[in-house]
Amino acid sequence: MKKTVVLTGDRPSGPLHLGHYVGSLVSRVALQETTQQYVMIADVQALTDNFENPEKVHNNVYEVLADYLAVGIDPDKTTIFIQSMIPAIPELTMYYMNLVTLARVQRNPTVKNEIKQKGYGDTVTAGFVNYPINQAADITAFQATVVPVGQDQLPMIEQTNEIVRSFNRIYKTNVLKEAEALITKTARLSGIDGQAKMSKSLGNAIFLKDTADEVAQKVRAMYTDPNHIKVDDPGKLEGNTVFEYLDIFATDKQKVQELKDQYQKGGLGDMKVKNYLLEQLNAFLDPIRTCRQEYTKDTAYLREILLKGTGHAHETSQNVLTQIKQAMHLVY
Amino acid sequence: MKKTVVLTGDRPSGPLHLGHYVGSLVSRVALQETTQQYVMIADVQALTDNFENPEKVHNNVYEVLADYLAVGIDPDKTTIFIQSMIPAIPELTMYYMNLVTLARVQRNPTVKNEIKQKGYGDTVTAGFVNYPINQAADITAFQATVVPVGQDQLPMIEQTNEIVRSFNRIYKTNVLKEAEALITKTARLSGIDGQAKMSKSLGNAIFLKDTADEVAQKVRAMYTDPNHIKVDDPGKLEGNTVFEYLDIFATDKQKVQELKDQYQKGGLGDMKVKNYLLEQLNAFLDPIRTCRQEYTKDTAYLREILLKGTGHAHETSQNVLTQIKQAMHLVY
Repeated sequence: MKKTVVLTGDRPSGPLHLGHYVGSLVSRVALQETTQQYVMIADVQALTDNFENPEKVHNNVYEVLADYLAVGIDPDKTTIFIQSMIPAIPELTMYYMNLVTLARVQRNPTVKNEIKQKGYGDTVTAGFVNYPINQAADITAFQATVVPVGQDQLPMIEQTNEIVRSFNRIYKTNVLKEAEALITKTARLSGIDGQAKMSKSLGNAIFLKDTADEVAQKVRAMYTDPNHIKVDDPGKLEGNTVFEYLDIFATDKQKVQELKDQYQKGGLGDMKVKNYLLEQLNAFLDPIRTCRQEYTKDTAYLREILLKGTGHAHETSQNVLTQIKQAMHLVY
Repeated sequence: MKKTVVLTGDRPSGPLHLGHYVGSLVSRVALQETTQQYVMIADVQALTDNFENPEKVHNNVYEVLADYLAVGIDPDKTTIFIQSMIPAIPELTMYYMNLVTLARVQRNPTVKNEIKQKGYGDTVTAGFVNYPINQAADITAFQATVVPVGQDQLPMIEQTNEIVRSFNRIYKTNVLKEAEALITKTARLSGIDGQAKMSKSLGNAIFLKDTADEVAQKVRAMYTDPNHIKVDDPGKLEGNTVFEYLDIFATDKQKVQELKDQYQKGGLGDMKVKNYLLEQLNAFLDPIRTCRQEYTKDTAYLREILLKGTGHAHETSQNVLTQIKQAMHLVY
């Protein structure tokens, strides 16, 4: 039986952090057991925001790959590939651009929000506006039918499916497959500053590659209950980042419950809870770090994995492209 | 010494006509002697207008190729290739789309005019709006420095050169070359109905593949001086399509001068001039037709020429693309 095809990935704009782990990496490790999973390192997409800093994107391709391997994404089960080495993606993008009106891409809520958030205004590039079409190419190049996304990315899947339906109708084919969004449950991890989202650009992230010292420093600075001043004060759990993290990363759930009870009653200092979190985080991160160090020492091996996965992705996408071109009578 | 590189081409939306011959084919036959000329059969661009009719585009690729060969474009001197088989073009297009604002492409006078002329309004596709960026990719993929265009296409060359300058500045390279417009002198041939431009879609074209009967029928219907009713009436040369064609296609310039004098004085009927034009046109078209018939009989040979030229174009463009990707740090 043919496995479900999943497409997912990351922009290599920085190393991955605990937010990525909770939001996507952990589910990828599970999905690779039951699906045919493609994980794209989206260097071309990263360039849309970083086109004046290509070295950064290049270096982060290897950082992200090391993160993947360290958390247990297995290159024998998951096809990890680099976007820029898959020419089928830009080819499909060009074809799809004839099927979508400019007005339609400009109405895309995700794009509109991002243009507003980033303050682009009239300086928005042609590439940025068209990125939903580019994503439709990413997805359909592998005939992926499941795409793990956050709630805010649903309009992107809708755009992809509109293109799929137009294409299949116009060219009288069924080579393109509609995709389904897989909404991740624990989509978000707060930043260490208590902000809703952990993000490199907000400076509130704990990276998978952080040393024990770096993690200690960050945990000490973590946001808790601002009214919990003296040890004896009763403390609040809501919005308390330290307890949010404990719920996720501590293995002894009973112990966490005891700490929560004590904290709410009063008599448990922040420092004590933070030390426990630090211990638990390090227990989680230590094997990842060790593994990561092994990989980053051996860049030849990393490169080999990257090229092997990319080779496989290229082959798959060229097969799909050939079928697409046949439907378009573009075969000579 | 490295030859000048010329890029030119046609959309395969129909067979070529006398307007193409006068406007571009004749100069290509000359340019192939002194330059490295690339002639692109732009099937992908043809699809932007004909995406619901891909069979038509496919068939016209061979029609256009047969026209090229019949007028003397020599595949040993000119690289004739199919756009859809050059993946470097969509790849470059995607990279360039990050260097151009949407506002800038929307301001492009050629695009604005065409949107207006074709009455696209809000239905204009993302692909159509971005086609100046796509053309920049066509040109730069071969490091072409000379592009034969009509006056109305000058903004396209300007857009290309803006991209070239941005790219070279941002990525600290000189791999991209600025292109120069080569404005064709006899850019336009009137239609047989006297309209300023011969065009398939206006139904006023004499095709290179037209039979002698078809040409006879078209010449008989040609627009002359509407006030030249009786043979004895003096006739006007201005706007008289028959004399315009004689100036171009008749070999005996003295004879044409005599006819003109007589026509202006009165005493020369339209039918007589038309018969002379027909004779001259057939003298011009006969060897083209014969040659064309030979080629269209042998589609295997046409295909071989197409694939050989495309192979060469692919190799060149991949070399350029590699240099471009090196500049962008997209090599792993």
